Amino acid sequence: MDPRVAEHAKILVNWCTKVKKGDNVLIYLNEQGIDLATEVHRQASVLGANVLVCYGGHPWDAVPTELVRGYYQSTPDEYLENFPRHHYELVKASDVVIHIRSGQNTLSLTGIDPKKISTRTKALKQLIDEGMSKRWCITQYPTTGFAQTAEMSLREYEDFVYSAVLVDWEKLTETMVKLQDSMNEADEVHIIGNKTDLTLSIKGRKTIIENGQKNLPGGEVFTAPIDDSANGEIFFDLPSVRFGREAVGVRLKLKDGEIVDYSAEKGEDLVKALINTDEGSKRLGELGIGMNRQITRFTRNILFDEKIGGTIHLAIGNAFKECGGINESSVHWDMIKSMKGGKLIFDGEVIQENGTF
Amino acid sequence: MDPRVAEHAKILVNWCTKVKKGDNVLIYLNEQGIDLATEVHRQASVLGANVLVCYGGHPWDAVPTELVRGYYQSTPDEYLENFPRHHYELVKASDVVIHIRSGQNTLSLTGIDPKKISTRTKALKQLIDEGMSKRWCITQYPTTGFAQTAEMSLREYEDFVYSAVLVDWEKLTETMVKLQDSMNEADEVHIIGNKTDLTLSIKGRKTIIENGQKNLPGGEVFTAPIDDSANGEIFFDLPSVRFGREAVGVRLKLKDGEIVDYSAEKGEDLVKALINTDEGSKRLGELGIGMNRQITRFTRNILFDEKIGGTIHLAIGNAFKECGGINESSVHWDMIKSMKGGKLIFDGEVIQENGTF
Repeated sequence: MDPRVAEHAKILVNWCTKVKKGDNVLIYLNEQGIDLATEVHRQASVLGANVLVCYGGHPWDAVPTELVRGYYQSTPDEYLENFPRHHYELVKASDVVIHIRSGQNTLSLTGIDPKKISTRTKALKQLIDEGMSKRWCITQYPTTGFAQTAEMSLREYEDFVYSAVLVDWEKLTETMVKLQDSMNEADEVHIIGNKTDLTLSIKGRKTIIENGQKNLPGGEVFTAPIDDSANGEIFFDLPSVRFGREAVGVRLKLKDGEIVDYSAEKGEDLVKALINTDEGSKRLGELGIGMNRQITRFTRNILFDEKIGGTIHLAIGNAFKECGGINESSVHWDMIKSMKGGKLIFDGEVIQENGTF
Repeated sequence: MDPRVAEHAKILVNWCTKVKKGDNVLIYLNEQGIDLATEVHRQASVLGANVLVCYGGHPWDAVPTELVRGYYQSTPDEYLENFPRHHYELVKASDVVIHIRSGQNTLSLTGIDPKKISTRTKALKQLIDEGMSKRWCITQYPTTGFAQTAEMSLREYEDFVYSAVLVDWEKLTETMVKLQDSMNEADEVHIIGNKTDLTLSIKGRKTIIENGQKNLPGGEVFTAPIDDSANGEIFFDLPSVRFGREAVGVRLKLKDGEIVDYSAEKGEDLVKALINTDEGSKRLGELGIGMNRQITRFTRNILFDEKIGGTIHLAIGNAFKECGGINESSVHWDMIKSMKGGKLIFDGEVIQENGTF
């Protein structure tokens, strides 16, 4: 076994979720990543925790399996709204939930109607919310499918993942706190760049640093925009992959916080389905700024891409309550923008230019 | 995908567990067998059920994974008695529990102290009992590890498994009912054979046929002996594999239902640990008679071996309540005996001689 797997597990158990004696730990897994789950299971058990590993089943992990594809392909529409009570009871009785993304094939749901996926996601909202009320974390296990998506070999991708994951999180935290402080004081955020001129307010909202605890790798500073404040247009240079499907060149036009127009060069039906999931999915839920300098490449994986230094991202849908966000939705979809050639302005002061602070 | 996998899933969903709309279905899986789990998941979802797949975690499936081995190897003894409340809540809220045995390596727990395993099994009794109160089923997915254990190639083993599983269960049921009737009327059972002369009573106990519904493959007729009735000695010609460990040439001496002496040619510490788990593990919980003529070979897998036509088996430990059994234990360990050269006598009448009725 790659010794970095045990190091990865150690961060998950001790830094991300702080597993302790008596905790009930739930691990979600895809086809692969069993080495990592085995190590997390082992290390958590040593501390006196109870661990159960589930194979797929949570929308966050639904990307890659034949199991999920078979489900969507065969299940009659009327049953997509069924609520898995047993799964919910499991989550409810858990203290820690760890998602290990480890699918073999990131595009296996491309042929599925996105409307089915959003119907299902909506039906599972109570389960998702319950999981988010726990000490939770999402991480990545390097698989051939994700390596291919990133246009790397598996060995190369392993190096990429572990360099982003196995960092000194305490030290990186200090750097992020500085940006956090200036965002906590800011009112108007102005984003200028390629086909982009958008203003929004973050006044009074709490800015949070993601220092590898809920997302591993971490490396982002984010908050929730004021719900009716966004005005203007934004173009997302980088593709967004969701449920194994891809949207490229997404453009959003917002007026008083609501998406009034949108288009995409590819995957517009996916964008349409996600925006129209519910009332909350028509508004922004997040403004994030990438801060992980170990992540130097775009890999078509939002868990990494949104952390790239020199990018920002917006999410439509659910806002984090911890930021003071009030927007509610069963969707939370991040879309990222390179700040190359752009400017990030807080209350008239240029904070970042051309991706550099 | 081997088309027999879909047929196998169909029997699991429709014959074994009779999945219906609204059911909460829990599937346990090991490293492999995901094709079968995917098909069960798909077919059950089509019927309107909710399905969740767990990776390992139940003692019945604990045989093969690195995950389970890592757990036992590292977890301090004091934590082996921890109760996984979240796992229990999941089982409690389930209607159907399907165990797919699908480990890569059936002997990966050989190096683990059996006492640890029996401590853990005892601690999980409430969870195991809860699962057995559901519509449950255990089945086998053909893996290289099980093929090796059976001394076959994987393709050969696939043919073996599917020939035993994909049978006309309604038709086989009729044949088994005849033996069931004569056992329901019997009082004294006398087993004579190699190093064996044992009598026990099954008077008033209910005999059950296992026609592929709780065990797939099925093909056994069984009941629970009267608890204080067994007297004499029995020698089990065939090895028994438990938790990835093996006991060979087990001999039991019983007096008034209690095991007063035992020995084994190999794995005596395993036998000792299992017998001494609790009060109930010192008595017999089951008398079974193999009836599946499709299973013609011994494969070191109790799920198949106990069904071989021309064998009988006894289990120590927990008795099935449905048979009227009252013995309680966290252990239920089957040991099988070839009836070649032996006799099975009900109330003085020879029912089976040399393995033939």
